Amino acid sequence: MRAQLRVAPGEDAALARRPTDDQLGFDRAGAQRRLAELVERLAALQNRLWAEDRRSVLLVLQGMDASGKDGTIGRVFTGLNPQGCRVVSFKAPSTLELEHDFLWRIHLALPRRGEIGIFNRSHYEDVVTARAIGVIDDAARERRFGHIRDFERMLADEGTSLVKVFLHLGRDEQRERLAARLADPEKRWKFRVEDLESRARWDEYLRLYEEALTATSTPYAPWYVVPADRKWVSGVAVAHLLVRALEDLDPRIPAADPGLEGVEIV
Amino acid sequence: MRAQLRVAPGEDAALARRPTDDQLGFDRAGAQRRLAELVERLAALQNRLWAEDRRSVLLVLQGMDASGKDGTIGRVFTGLNPQGCRVVSFKAPSTLELEHDFLWRIHLALPRRGEIGIFNRSHYEDVVTARAIGVIDDAARERRFGHIRDFERMLADEGTSLVKVFLHLGRDEQRERLAARLADPEKRWKFRVEDLESRARWDEYLRLYEEALTATSTPYAPWYVVPADRKWVSGVAVAHLLVRALEDLDPRIPAADPGLEGVEIV
Repeated sequence: MRAQLRVAPGEDAALARRPTDDQLGFDRAGAQRRLAELVERLAALQNRLWAEDRRSVLLVLQGMDASGKDGTIGRVFTGLNPQGCRVVSFKAPSTLELEHDFLWRIHLALPRRGEIGIFNRSHYEDVVTARAIGVIDDAARERRFGHIRDFERMLADEGTSLVKVFLHLGRDEQRERLAARLADPEKRWKFRVEDLESRARWDEYLRLYEEALTATSTPYAPWYVVPADRKWVSGVAVAHLLVRALEDLDPRIPAADPGLEGVEIV
Repeated sequence: MRAQLRVAPGEDAALARRPTDDQLGFDRAGAQRRLAELVERLAALQNRLWAEDRRSVLLVLQGMDASGKDGTIGRVFTGLNPQGCRVVSFKAPSTLELEHDFLWRIHLALPRRGEIGIFNRSHYEDVVTARAIGVIDDAARERRFGHIRDFERMLADEGTSLVKVFLHLGRDEQRERLAARLADPEKRWKFRVEDLESRARWDEYLRLYEEALTATSTPYAPWYVVPADRKWVSGVAVAHLLVRALEDLDPRIPAADPGLEGVEIV
């Protein structure tokens, strides 16, 4: 599954050729069973990562409005011990954040050693949304692509494994979800009028994402494009990618304190 | 249950008179059923707190080594959405932290509006452990009690509900747990030789905790003493205290964006 979802470094992300409704070989019941197994495996690996306390994992989640970022976090991480998980949602930058370069708030929010960090939106807003609303021009965006590659190479070298996921939603499915959100009094508060503006510029946002993914999928921090029309598909795919990333790390329970031989507790 | 566990402001915490093996009226199976109900209720309230995005809750967990701080966090919060929970473990202060007052790192780590923060150890180490190992004297400790009361009053006024829990462990039960930890190759790494030094000074630590609880249990930030000899009792008690704190807040789903009347998604 990982190879299929991966944006091969140096190749075009080609979003139009990637179906948003792929089921990745699962039916709903099978995906739910598989997700439960993966979450259990993830919990065991997280425990070892935490005990080892040397390296960290960073999941970056991007996607159009209603692509299921919050829901995926809920599905994959509810059931994990929140001690060792750090979720950060990036909204429009605060005035303090705007007083610094675009990677400053990202750097501050990174997981500690032993933690799994989850970014709900990220520095990729600063090359997609920032370009769409005209905060930066194309030349600045190109420079930022380079800064992001450099920054992520440093993170990978220093012990943070990056798993970058684009939740690839179809335009029709977005309409269904936004309409449902609007109709549900419990969910209506999530709906912002600006969501309609970005929806109206769908093709432009998709192109900006495609260019960002193409420019920043690297051997040390590749992008994965996850079909997002079915929530249970996104859940199982993200859990799979995380488990595989942790298996690659293979964290180990550290050795005991050397002074403990023959100790008796009185 | 809340009144029974509470350290009444102005009264002595009187730890010797509080049993560490109280079952709070539960048997093990009943406590597990009740915990499952409370976690479900907590998840619903957390969702409303997150949606409301105005106030926050801070759980402070203190206790002797092996009193079950990590385990309680696992039992109560696994099953909650980690988006909206922020767990922070305070260890010995870093050199950067030592360059500031003792509340600086605490302030930085507080939950945002809408979040439940969980402190695994806290600023109370700076009046208990710091006094035990001689970093501060009694006069400085008294001043710090005042600073803590002032700081917590500010937090309460500004929208953070504090739930402070002392996991009250018996000395014999600690011996059992430390011996089990030492015998288990998967858990041995958690054991530090220094744990034996604090165990050897049990009575002194207990007195320092008692004085700290007595000095800082206030109407706006009371302490609760939770019997910790049985892990399932601590779990259900902490979940109960949190649910009650959230029920007191009664967070509400916010109203929808005013521009949404009659909107159609195209």
